[in-house]
Amino acid sequence: MTGVNAQWRLAARPVGLPKPTDWEYAEEPAPEPADGQFQVQLEYLSLDPAMRGWMNEGRSYVPPVGIGEVMRAGGLGRITNSRHRDYRAGDLVSGMFGIQRYALSDGRGVSRVDETLAPAPVHLGVLGMTGLTAYFGLLDIGRPEPGQTVVVSGAAGAVGNVAGQIARIKGCKVIGIAGGSEKCAWLTEDLGFDAAIDYKAGEVRAELRAHAPDGVDVYFDNVGGEILDEVLRRLARHARVVICGAISQYNAEQAPRGPANYMQLLVERSSMAGFLVFDYAHRYAEAIAQLADWLNDGELVSREDIVGAGIEQFPEVFLRLFRGDNIGKLILQLDGVQA
Amino acid sequence: MTGVNAQWRLAARPVGLPKPTDWEYAEEPAPEPADGQFQVQLEYLSLDPAMRGWMNEGRSYVPPVGIGEVMRAGGLGRITNSRHRDYRAGDLVSGMFGIQRYALSDGRGVSRVDETLAPAPVHLGVLGMTGLTAYFGLLDIGRPEPGQTVVVSGAAGAVGNVAGQIARIKGCKVIGIAGGSEKCAWLTEDLGFDAAIDYKAGEVRAELRAHAPDGVDVYFDNVGGEILDEVLRRLARHARVVICGAISQYNAEQAPRGPANYMQLLVERSSMAGFLVFDYAHRYAEAIAQLADWLNDGELVSREDIVGAGIEQFPEVFLRLFRGDNIGKLILQLDGVQA
Repeated sequence: MTGVNAQWRLAARPVGLPKPTDWEYAEEPAPEPADGQFQVQLEYLSLDPAMRGWMNEGRSYVPPVGIGEVMRAGGLGRITNSRHRDYRAGDLVSGMFGIQRYALSDGRGVSRVDETLAPAPVHLGVLGMTGLTAYFGLLDIGRPEPGQTVVVSGAAGAVGNVAGQIARIKGCKVIGIAGGSEKCAWLTEDLGFDAAIDYKAGEVRAELRAHAPDGVDVYFDNVGGEILDEVLRRLARHARVVICGAISQYNAEQAPRGPANYMQLLVERSSMAGFLVFDYAHRYAEAIAQLADWLNDGELVSREDIVGAGIEQFPEVFLRLFRGDNIGKLILQLDGVQA
Repeated sequence: MTGVNAQWRLAARPVGLPKPTDWEYAEEPAPEPADGQFQVQLEYLSLDPAMRGWMNEGRSYVPPVGIGEVMRAGGLGRITNSRHRDYRAGDLVSGMFGIQRYALSDGRGVSRVDETLAPAPVHLGVLGMTGLTAYFGLLDIGRPEPGQTVVVSGAAGAVGNVAGQIARIKGCKVIGIAGGSEKCAWLTEDLGFDAAIDYKAGEVRAELRAHAPDGVDVYFDNVGGEILDEVLRRLARHARVVICGAISQYNAEQAPRGPANYMQLLVERSSMAGFLVFDYAHRYAEAIAQLADWLNDGELVSREDIVGAGIEQFPEVFLRLFRGDNIGKLILQLDGVQA
């Protein structure tokens, strides 16, 4: 039953974009479950910008991945061997299993995947942490009201596209900011965004002025940097800025850039707040049920950017996140998985 | 009855600290009230850091002072001539009368000063916009709870010292950040702050760690810049950052510095929000009654830094705010006023 457990371990703390030497590839026998554990064979690995932060030294909302440890990542796989009374071989489960072929778990932080709701990879996207992050960040922190103007950056990314779609479902005017015409066309043509701004075309300020003439009521920020500053310039009175991520800064080699225009929070009596999806665990079920309803009604479109490859390719595939290559949820589908 | 109206007008938009050539001194006959107006002879001029912002071009919460216009400022004076049915000669009033000896008003935005509550200058300080700003910013935006740790920057300044005292009255642990040992001694010895950090001594990070071992629950920020970044590093979970001012940035000749550590808002699920005291006009009476009670009980100490001088000295006295020279509320008491 047991195969070879291929793994990617963190070898060094990256400076800037992770380099090949920041990783160490390892192979070892797949671990056998002890009593109360089960073994999962990973099929899909979730690749997320937040992983870059976990590679850094220092205090954050989770401890950094230690040097020599298997890289932390969400994933989805099938139980191959269980000595846990609540799980059986063949169960499809989702959890923080790491960048490896096989993981052991005692069930903590693991959730069962209901394939009747949606195909497996969707449970890493709209029905996984990605969708939950968009759902709670937008609705709980952003608190958009019908008719208000919502701007989402990183709008073609995994979380951003879902946040924008939820805003649209809630009756808001939705403006996405993304890089490149292909992404922008997807937002307006396929997802029903009211407008999309291609920041690579360089007219963010003028386009924000044109598309948000009355100001921005909710800004869902995934990118930080210059774009955050541009949106702060256009806040409406009593606006809410939701800090979900800052992908433009994750690989900065200098100190990160703070939002120079933050005093607009005073001028417009506005707030900027961060959140972590983990704090909403007691409401995951409610949110997943709602997201699944929207999916099934066709109101919410799920898009996964699934790269089928050997796990050996992980370091290279991971970099797609920072090169702006992916549209929707980036997933590494491990070789040998029956899609 | 009419004298000479000496005025300071804005001559140019300053770059950095205002220079003498950014101002124009003018004298003209004191203006006579039309029907429905009254004439005020100013006795005390309120000098506030926010005035520096009003000198800049560009969108803000109030229009900029126009070139050639009398500099905007709060002040307190006695009505010398009234053709307004609700006001009589001899009434002491407070309002945005500008940097001049005489002003006309139709009563809008003017409030009567009740000298039985406190001496006249206190109505520009603790019982004026200064105290109201501290009151609403701390209590409504900061929402401190008893036992929580509150940090105030610019803590020996007009608003900061009141914010810190209110936090102490509310049962919080209060840490002030100020420049110089004299200010710090005043905070701890006279105002009952639990600790004071002299940022000029250069150990802000270590002292914050020592005095706020469990993190900062509320940060009332008057200064921005490096100190904002240092406090962000030490936020407690679910902290509230109150953006009241950013005096370290008001005279910056480059683009202002944004808070590079703003992602701590995410790590600690915290918020940063701005406010303007004017939005609380419907609650001024409640706040003034409370502040006056605390004053009379001796729980709240009022300190005005009153400079008695000719109005000709205004440009120089104003700069005291940015040189860190004042302790408490900076007020220019015009020559000839009976204190």
